[in-house]
Amino acid sequence: MSCVNFSCVDLNCDLGESFGAYTMGMDEAVVPHVTSINVACGYHAGDPLIMEKTMALAAKYGVAVGAHPGFPDLLGFGRRPMTVTPEEAGAYVKYQLGALMAFAKSHGLKLQHVKPHGALYNMAAKDAKLARGIAEAVASVDTGIYLMGLAGSVMLEEAEKAGLPVISEVFADRAYNDDGSLVNRKILGAVIHDGDEAAARAVKMAKENKVVSINGKTIDIKADSICVHGDNGAAIELVKKIRASLAAEGIAVQNFQAQ
Amino acid sequence: MSCVNFSCVDLNCDLGESFGAYTMGMDEAVVPHVTSINVACGYHAGDPLIMEKTMALAAKYGVAVGAHPGFPDLLGFGRRPMTVTPEEAGAYVKYQLGALMAFAKSHGLKLQHVKPHGALYNMAAKDAKLARGIAEAVASVDTGIYLMGLAGSVMLEEAEKAGLPVISEVFADRAYNDDGSLVNRKILGAVIHDGDEAAARAVKMAKENKVVSINGKTIDIKADSICVHGDNGAAIELVKKIRASLAAEGIAVQNFQAQ
Amino acid sequence: MSCVNFSCVDLNCDLGESFGAYTMGMDEAVVPHVTSINVACGYHAGDPLIMEKTMALAAKYGVAVGAHPGFPDLLGFGRRPMTVTPEEAGAYVKYQLGALMAFAKSHGLKLQHVKPHGALYNMAAKDAKLARGIAEAVASVDTGIYLMGLAGSVMLEEAEKAGLPVISEVFADRAYNDDGSLVNRKILGAVIHDGDEAAARAVKMAKENKVVSINGKTIDIKADSICVHGDNGAAIELVKKIRASLAAEGIAVQNFQAQ
Amino acid sequence: MSCVNFSCVDLNCDLGESFGAYTMGMDEAVVPHVTSINVACGYHAGDPLIMEKTMALAAKYGVAVGAHPGFPDLLGFGRRPMTVTPEEAGAYVKYQLGALMAFAKSHGLKLQHVKPHGALYNMAAKDAKLARGIAEAVASVDTGIYLMGLAGSVMLEEAEKAGLPVISEVFADRAYNDDGSLVNRKILGAVIHDGDEAAARAVKMAKENKVVSINGKTIDIKADSICVHGDNGAAIELVKKIRASLAAEGIAVQNFQAQ
Repeated sequence: MSCVNFSCVDLNCDLGESFGAYTMGMDEAVVPHVTSINVACGYHAGDPLIMEKTMALAAKYGVAVGAHPGFPDLLGFGRRPMTVTPEEAGAYVKYQLGALMAFAKSHGLKLQHVKPHGALYNMAAKDAKLARGIAEAVASVDTGIYLMGLAGSVMLEEAEKAGLPVISEVFADRAYNDDGSLVNRKILGAVIHDGDEAAARAVKMAKENKVVSINGKTIDIKADSICVHGDNGAAIELVKKIRASLAAEGIAVQNFQAQ
Repeated sequence: MSCVNFSCVDLNCDLGESFGAYTMGMDEAVVPHVTSINVACGYHAGDPLIMEKTMALAAKYGVAVGAHPGFPDLLGFGRRPMTVTPEEAGAYVKYQLGALMAFAKSHGLKLQHVKPHGALYNMAAKDAKLARGIAEAVASVDTGIYLMGLAGSVMLEEAEKAGLPVISEVFADRAYNDDGSLVNRKILGAVIHDGDEAAARAVKMAKENKVVSINGKTIDIKADSICVHGDNGAAIELVKKIRASLAAEGIAVQNFQAQ
Repeated sequence: MSCVNFSCVDLNCDLGESFGAYTMGMDEAVVPHVTSINVACGYHAGDPLIMEKTMALAAKYGVAVGAHPGFPDLLGFGRRPMTVTPEEAGAYVKYQLGALMAFAKSHGLKLQHVKPHGALYNMAAKDAKLARGIAEAVASVDTGIYLMGLAGSVMLEEAEKAGLPVISEVFADRAYNDDGSLVNRKILGAVIHDGDEAAARAVKMAKENKVVSINGKTIDIKADSICVHGDNGAAIELVKKIRASLAAEGIAVQNFQAQ
Repeated sequence: MSCVNFSCVDLNCDLGESFGAYTMGMDEAVVPHVTSINVACGYHAGDPLIMEKTMALAAKYGVAVGAHPGFPDLLGFGRRPMTVTPEEAGAYVKYQLGALMAFAKSHGLKLQHVKPHGALYNMAAKDAKLARGIAEAVASVDTGIYLMGLAGSVMLEEAEKAGLPVISEVFADRAYNDDGSLVNRKILGAVIHDGDEAAARAVKMAKENKVVSINGKTIDIKADSICVHGDNGAAIELVKKIRASLAAEGIAVQNFQAQ
């Protein structure tokens, strides 16, 4: 981001995860509080009507739009690792990215980024070949699209090698290991449930690009965008709290198309 | 088309209808003989890897590419009528169109057209609201894309109203009613099995924009593109025969991007 | 049912309509108040884990279990008419029925009935060939399974011809035409929103096998089972109200396995 | 099997792997030559109409029928490892098993066995928890059903613990490691392409329950059933050759329902 001295940060949220008759998330409640959205593209969640509606929402609130491609596993919401080749991963991402581009274009929007979803996100954070497959697929479509991924992960390294600009994503409500990876959810303390603490961590990451690991060590972390959630009322309250904390510290909240 | 006195015609064929481990059609055998291809986009047939491969094929042979969106009914190959709203139909088309656009773009190709598939094609040929939903969806993405549909159908009327250029499609191996509609396949004589007759009809349609109906009446029919098939060896022989007959009559075979 | 003078009635409710990460309905809240449940089988809703859980719920509350097969249209929740052959419809029903039977058997339960879902229910109520395809499929598996369908519909006629026992279903919150068919939802007055009125209609149908049509005419209607809903809190309140009204009139509420 | 001194063996083949408009395998050509078939159940391949047709084929030729459940990954033909819980695997198997049972029952057939497909087969051969989830699911439906799995694998151990009879499967055209596991297909020599050699190995396994490993060591292998293929003409010729070789050695070919 072009902000000087890390005085700005992006807030991103997964959106458009409903499917057919099934509703998920409080999209309209959370969208006014974020600057970028990651839109499900029909593989792990989302469907064409939802994508249409989500683009209308994005246009209305002026948030930047990213594709949120996942594994072809609606039953598992894209959260289950699947063994796919880099070519398969790339083709799946290209398919979903293209589908969303059409909806975006019809609403006068241009995609800001691609953020792999769920198991694909986690796998690509560690598997360079898989990450390369995804990055090259995105780059083959448009090298102006940002690749959003876990800060410090091989996903971002591969994206840069493929010529893509990147967005380093951080999590305010997740504990970090000393190496900058996320603490496994099965470990006690992996998720920060206290809103004030999460907000404080968000501020520290946005302002100083630092976070205190689960072992108490202060580590460097590049914080271009903070991931927040709109699953329920409590999640939305947390988003507001994070925004308020950022504002109190003079940190601007803005996306990568606003700069 | 810009050809004078109907001295040229496009030959289109459905392609990329394989899915996962399942192979359908002789894509590589038929593609050298046609000028435009209609590519399945993952709803009724096709998948991301197949779409990737089909774009490579299109680039290699220099054929024009169109999206061939269908109903979300892989089990029924998109051939079964489904009751969908115009909004649903439009969103389904937009989704599939966008997905293919990404693959096309990554191969340096630009989509020439959209041709609805199967039951969606047949329904949209008669149902103006459904046709409008499809046409407006395509136009909302790109008004430079041709809408290919049954010659004389409401699909093309609605496409023109939506500001899209159109391609009137004809069938060399299908009988026509006096009103220019296709004779129902259940009726004897609906399909022309004799290759020479089919080729002769192709020539007459391309050259004179006329066809003899099942009742023996010569009727007008706008023939911008002739639909051919690559399902099997016999189908491919028929394509060659049609091309030879067109050539013998001095009718150029070319797509809408070559003009 | 074996109750004398219509002094008993079954209360059925659709259950198990969640899918993967998506939750639908308040299954645990409504199940204690009904006597039979119609369980989604994975085509229009439901999945194997949900079916497992729903069978555990049925065993716990002692309700009778029925399969609720629908069209293979998760995206449309099985509510969109699809043109299928009687053979396809029969095979789809057989598939879903069998799948549920395995879950039921593993919980020590035996299926009481099959009730087609959504568009399949509505189409089979009027289309004798489609109804026959469904009925013969069920009968080919087990002639001891009841076919639950719209009271007075051809679905039940065909079921009886196929040798199946039948359950005539009525709706307390829907208006009826003079011929016993349901008033189209698009027509004003098609849905009865007043709980007291719905409860009163339930009582009249259960007790007298009669209902007042939308035109004010009292018509005969066979009421073996009353359809209720568990979608939300209000729906569950209505179920309780109907049960209270039936109890006040001395009408027993029981399923077809309890007799 | 009740045959004395290993004088009989079962020949099994995957069948019913077509889907909708897509045809796979030469089912009618291979079925007369085998004694048991493993039938796809709609997750990785197969559909209700195909299952119906396959049961008719089984009844006509008198072969024993088994369910061939796979991962919910039609796109990958069930060949891609997916991370599922034992509960998910069990529920998926139960669903597919039940679905096939209905088709079998309607054709007067009773299922002989369940054989997990593809990646599920390979994963369950090594992962005891996954194997237990599958075995307990089958046992919860019917403890009379055989579990067919890789000879010597944990899948069979867990099946026996769950109270199921087992069928040890061997491969005539695959090389074995010294520990009885299959040589990875990526390794040269993993697949035996010579038909005579494959037939000789089949005989040795059926007669002596022994096979020569890729390292030249003769190892024990329990050979209840030999897996053969019906993918193409060459595969069917191999089946015939194996049968002829078995016959020449006086080894009866029969399934587990014929004993």
